[in-house]
Amino acid sequence: MTAIAISEPGGPLVLKPDRRPVPSPGLGEILIRVRAAGVNRPDVLQRKGAYPPPPGASDLPGLEAAGEVVAVGGNVARWRIGDGVTALTAGGAYAEYVVVHETNALPIPHGFTFTEAAAIPETFFTVWHNVFQRGGLQAGEDFLVHGGSSGIGTVAIQLASAFGATVFATAGTADKCAACVSLGAKRAINYREEDFVRVVKDETNRKGVELTLDMVGGDYVDRNYQAAAIEGRIVQIATLGGVQANADISRLMVKRLTHTGSTLRPRTIEFKAKIAAELEAKVWPLLATRKIAPVMDMIFPLKEAWRAHERMEEGDHIGKIVLDI
Amino acid sequence: MTAIAISEPGGPLVLKPDRRPVPSPGLGEILIRVRAAGVNRPDVLQRKGAYPPPPGASDLPGLEAAGEVVAVGGNVARWRIGDGVTALTAGGAYAEYVVVHETNALPIPHGFTFTEAAAIPETFFTVWHNVFQRGGLQAGEDFLVHGGSSGIGTVAIQLASAFGATVFATAGTADKCAACVSLGAKRAINYREEDFVRVVKDETNRKGVELTLDMVGGDYVDRNYQAAAIEGRIVQIATLGGVQANADISRLMVKRLTHTGSTLRPRTIEFKAKIAAELEAKVWPLLATRKIAPVMDMIFPLKEAWRAHERMEEGDHIGKIVLDI
Repeated sequence: MTAIAISEPGGPLVLKPDRRPVPSPGLGEILIRVRAAGVNRPDVLQRKGAYPPPPGASDLPGLEAAGEVVAVGGNVARWRIGDGVTALTAGGAYAEYVVVHETNALPIPHGFTFTEAAAIPETFFTVWHNVFQRGGLQAGEDFLVHGGSSGIGTVAIQLASAFGATVFATAGTADKCAACVSLGAKRAINYREEDFVRVVKDETNRKGVELTLDMVGGDYVDRNYQAAAIEGRIVQIATLGGVQANADISRLMVKRLTHTGSTLRPRTIEFKAKIAAELEAKVWPLLATRKIAPVMDMIFPLKEAWRAHERMEEGDHIGKIVLDI
Repeated sequence: MTAIAISEPGGPLVLKPDRRPVPSPGLGEILIRVRAAGVNRPDVLQRKGAYPPPPGASDLPGLEAAGEVVAVGGNVARWRIGDGVTALTAGGAYAEYVVVHETNALPIPHGFTFTEAAAIPETFFTVWHNVFQRGGLQAGEDFLVHGGSSGIGTVAIQLASAFGATVFATAGTADKCAACVSLGAKRAINYREEDFVRVVKDETNRKGVELTLDMVGGDYVDRNYQAAAIEGRIVQIATLGGVQANADISRLMVKRLTHTGSTLRPRTIEFKAKIAAELEAKVWPLLATRKIAPVMDMIFPLKEAWRAHERMEEGDHIGKIVLDI
């Protein structure tokens, strides 16, 4: 099969077509003929050599894929050949075929194209776990998400709004801010022009937000503490602004904050299966009626994966970048 | 009555005897004739002007007192005049009389003197909430406490051991380390000679500790993250080493840590009453049999409260410093 491999750590052009054997599904696994694969920030880090695949995972990039089931391993209970699925993969989705455990695949939501479906897993699994399971977001709470126009951000805004939270989102341009509001944010904050701490405090009557989803880190950590309400939670899912945080931790004590975080990729099949089951029960119905949907930025052919990475690194995208295979 | 007041923010000598009216118990409150009052680190901060009393609280220092009930307000259900109690106060315990809500007082454990009983509330309430309620310590977990020979530390070691955790404690001298081990720590770490991260990793087969109770902050924050196990929790209860923490927050994500914290004094009467009820049910029986007990450092007369503060600030104490009234 044709796949896109990382020929060596480096810039987008190290992503090169390669010939690989079609993988075989083992016990409980399915083989997917990939029709589309989503592009995610961890793919870029992996390409640069900064995010090695976990033990046992494919060396090929790609954390999500949509397509048809073309073979099943032993003990596969749910899927049959020909089923349309979208799946979270531990890598290897930048390819014509990929193997996943059957519990980490979900049906393509009614009426969705393969490219739309491929834009779902990574961001929806990440947001569901970090915002609702780990972050415990409740209806009626105030929620702040940074990077509001990113793949993660656009999903976080929609899901938090759909489940009754009031959403504040930061973004870097007027267009991106407008996108955040159109997705359900009560107020978008252009971080180049406004201080999100001040805006969030003003908008919440000085209370602050109960939950913050942060992918920036660096000097945002102390500011997240400042923007938080008493007993507020901050969930860290990336550190695009730097891993070193110089924060006043007396704020953690005085406001009784909880700062936590997670990464999705190294988690077990079983853990991801639990997220999948909750998503199917609670979020798939919202997708089927288009109450929510992934925001599609651009679609590139598989062989131009390097262009997809370039676009992500330029930072002008709004929503998801997807590869068409 | 005679009380010790803070004549102005400053060193120990600003603690001066003062004449004050005896306070009156309101609805649900009791008046205690104070026989002994515990000395705590927040008293020192308050004396320096760095920890103002919460709204409505006495301006006098003193967060815990033991003595006899000498008057009761309306609707007091539990206590009668003459009962011996030890209580968490919102301030004002450096005095001959203090008023507290009846739910924030507990009976003096069987066989305890007033000075021993006065050494209980602040540290036991703090440890119970932060280690067991907020920190969720479970039997079989590995637990690290900094300042192991402090009032808080000596209680944390005993309670964590009594409830089945394996305890590691840091302290600054060989004597203090020996005290930690005698109280139940599996291993004490002299932080002047050893790196607690290395010791904790070595002792737990590289796993790290599930829970850390920290009152140091500053550069301990990043080291606490390093010493933590996957899904580990760190509870911050003070920042004696500085409020600014320069930490690598990718550790929070990769290990899925939870960093939280709290302060006790500003919490509601009802919140403290809940802690009191759990302590009475789960910890008072251990005190009655002397399975655990506050570690007594030194006792000073009320009028020499300044000497008690000097001793605390010199840092040579092991366990609790108490005022005899």
